[in-house]
Amino acid sequence: MTQAFFKVLDVEQVLGLRQRFQPVSSEDVLLEAAVGRILAEDVHAAGNLPGFARSTVDGYAVRAASTFGASESSPALFTVVGAVAMGEVPQVAVAAGEAARIATGGMLPPGADGVVMLEHAESLDDVSIEVVRSVAPGQNLIAAGEDFENGARVAAVGRRLRPQDMGVLAAFGRTRVKAFRQPVVGIISTGDEIVPAEATPGPAQIRDVNRYTLAGLVAQTGALPVAFGIVGDEFQSLHAACRRALEQCDMVLISGGSSVGARDFSVEVISAFAGAELLVHGIAISPGKPTILAKVFGKALWGLPGHVVSSMIVFSRIVRPVLLHIGGLAAPTAEDIRIPARLNRNVASAQGRTDFVRVRLLHRENEWRAEPILGKSGLINTMVKSDGVIEIGKNIEGLDEGARVEVILF
Amino acid sequence: MTQAFFKVLDVEQVLGLRQRFQPVSSEDVLLEAAVGRILAEDVHAAGNLPGFARSTVDGYAVRAASTFGASESSPALFTVVGAVAMGEVPQVAVAAGEAARIATGGMLPPGADGVVMLEHAESLDDVSIEVVRSVAPGQNLIAAGEDFENGARVAAVGRRLRPQDMGVLAAFGRTRVKAFRQPVVGIISTGDEIVPAEATPGPAQIRDVNRYTLAGLVAQTGALPVAFGIVGDEFQSLHAACRRALEQCDMVLISGGSSVGARDFSVEVISAFAGAELLVHGIAISPGKPTILAKVFGKALWGLPGHVVSSMIVFSRIVRPVLLHIGGLAAPTAEDIRIPARLNRNVASAQGRTDFVRVRLLHRENEWRAEPILGKSGLINTMVKSDGVIEIGKNIEGLDEGARVEVILF
Repeated sequence: MTQAFFKVLDVEQVLGLRQRFQPVSSEDVLLEAAVGRILAEDVHAAGNLPGFARSTVDGYAVRAASTFGASESSPALFTVVGAVAMGEVPQVAVAAGEAARIATGGMLPPGADGVVMLEHAESLDDVSIEVVRSVAPGQNLIAAGEDFENGARVAAVGRRLRPQDMGVLAAFGRTRVKAFRQPVVGIISTGDEIVPAEATPGPAQIRDVNRYTLAGLVAQTGALPVAFGIVGDEFQSLHAACRRALEQCDMVLISGGSSVGARDFSVEVISAFAGAELLVHGIAISPGKPTILAKVFGKALWGLPGHVVSSMIVFSRIVRPVLLHIGGLAAPTAEDIRIPARLNRNVASAQGRTDFVRVRLLHRENEWRAEPILGKSGLINTMVKSDGVIEIGKNIEGLDEGARVEVILF
Repeated sequence: MTQAFFKVLDVEQVLGLRQRFQPVSSEDVLLEAAVGRILAEDVHAAGNLPGFARSTVDGYAVRAASTFGASESSPALFTVVGAVAMGEVPQVAVAAGEAARIATGGMLPPGADGVVMLEHAESLDDVSIEVVRSVAPGQNLIAAGEDFENGARVAAVGRRLRPQDMGVLAAFGRTRVKAFRQPVVGIISTGDEIVPAEATPGPAQIRDVNRYTLAGLVAQTGALPVAFGIVGDEFQSLHAACRRALEQCDMVLISGGSSVGARDFSVEVISAFAGAELLVHGIAISPGKPTILAKVFGKALWGLPGHVVSSMIVFSRIVRPVLLHIGGLAAPTAEDIRIPARLNRNVASAQGRTDFVRVRLLHRENEWRAEPILGKSGLINTMVKSDGVIEIGKNIEGLDEGARVEVILF
């Protein structure tokens, strides 16, 4: 085994290591079910959108020039030569001084280059209208190719598909798209004191909380969690569980082992894999320092802190971006946006490490206030009360009340 | 049919109508797959959490009083009387001047009320240590019931389950929970010009974009979209499709019909249902004014604008909160938080209606700037370029560059 670093890394150094992992392969998915999936192909416009000039209002298709100068006091007179039926090619053409009735979405007839809104026209009789406002060429319509021109790139590899992206793909007839597979993430719980959630813990035992918390975090990231059960602090069992998980998954999380002994033990188990590369052995963050990242069989194998609170914070700030990279995401999207807020209380912080402080968001005077959640760091109830965490940089010694912060939601 | 209102309503009036609809029924779900689901029961702590006092560090369990006054220059001497094994009830008790080796997560032995961190103790020989820092009673441990006391409410009806909530439920042995069913939302596309996405449109036809966009929005809201295909502008067909959808779904969206004629037609079809109640016929918003909401067979039946852009905005601001109510949500959670930003350009707006302006978010100088997206309102590409919309209140006549706004993400 090779160890690239023997020292504790900072957040940016750890995140930089994501480039050491390859994104997963891709598969064909139904567009209908593709929201949140990450596109694995560039999609280009197969034709103009719209394919024809469409009216955006109910009214009359005309030659715009024939309306120039029209006003309430001096209306322009038009002869109505017909009507455009929805979804059909117009059977009429429009010459100077002529108008064709058209509804929103209808195809402009030949000769027309503008649409007069219904409320700006007055019917005189069955075949004549007066127009009281002028329209410019191109007004109240969308020209062929105005939305997307034939050949334009409409969506790029690595984009997380939003509803509007799905709409555009449908507009070009793509009812199936190539998306990255959803990464499968194995979760191994460790610790001699841990019992399954469905069991009744003995007097010194606790239920497996981390498995469910991590499964939720993995699923929220768009990946598929698979639990590999609880493994006691025994070398062969943990080694075998890791091997099984590495074979079946794209990433593996070993959860537990908060004690120094358990951590050393995880490193020992990981190191025993042929070609294992220990990339991270400690991160300069609090909570979450005792985090391990190794590359084994080309895959990311994490040792996460046993405290569920630390584990959640490490997942949100460190594991999640790496998992998104492995899932093919090119750039963060809206759901990764941090919320700007102001601290409503002084917060202490240690220099030399990045501190994460749990906060609740309160809406006050048109802005968000971030209220630090008090209580011992190991208490799960502090996470339940929190909306997220703020990050205090390693060169900052605490923040004052009123300081601008950005909240990472969970 | 009764018509509660004949006038155009504003946003808050429409949202207030959600109380007219009952939330869906509930079902048992596996906790493992419950992230994002809405809890349909109050969950109380079935016992203390933790069930016993646990160490939060690696070190020595002691009587805190025995450490008082200890310092580097005047260490306190302790006799090591044993070690606590993880997951097992301690076989030793600790008296004054005695210490038991303990790892993070271990159960405190009888007599101990504090834990000295390993780095604050120095081993003299196999059975003696010197402690160089005092600990307070309760320090470096979590007392029994300190996280949650027996009987405390740990999660309430209407809460959207986050990973940390799943963790807490697991801690109390709840591997199944009662959650509201995911509402089933029917989507009916209308319009004689609409063809299925897999078809090749004729010269005056366009593909069904709205179905996919709406399916994405519905799924993002935690509900289950079901497409009922495309129905032409023909009374019997639309009426039959609505009936089928109302029978199978908890909410129905009729998408399309941007023209005044098509809208009137939708109202006519809806009104033909026995007991139908037209609640909304127009909303004072732009875009999205021609929105219809009726209560038919106790269910919400929406007529959404045919323009996909308007339809998306109406969904995000109006339909989504109503759907979340029907899905059992009691209060918005982090994913519904709006992003505070500053406008980076003047924006015009009309009084008397709520205007929605598409914006892109740019991160500048430690805050978000909202950049209005230019382009005709009917263009889908404007939605693809946007990160969300800002809402300009009906009594506001435009906003200046630098104004504080809040962005509704999509």
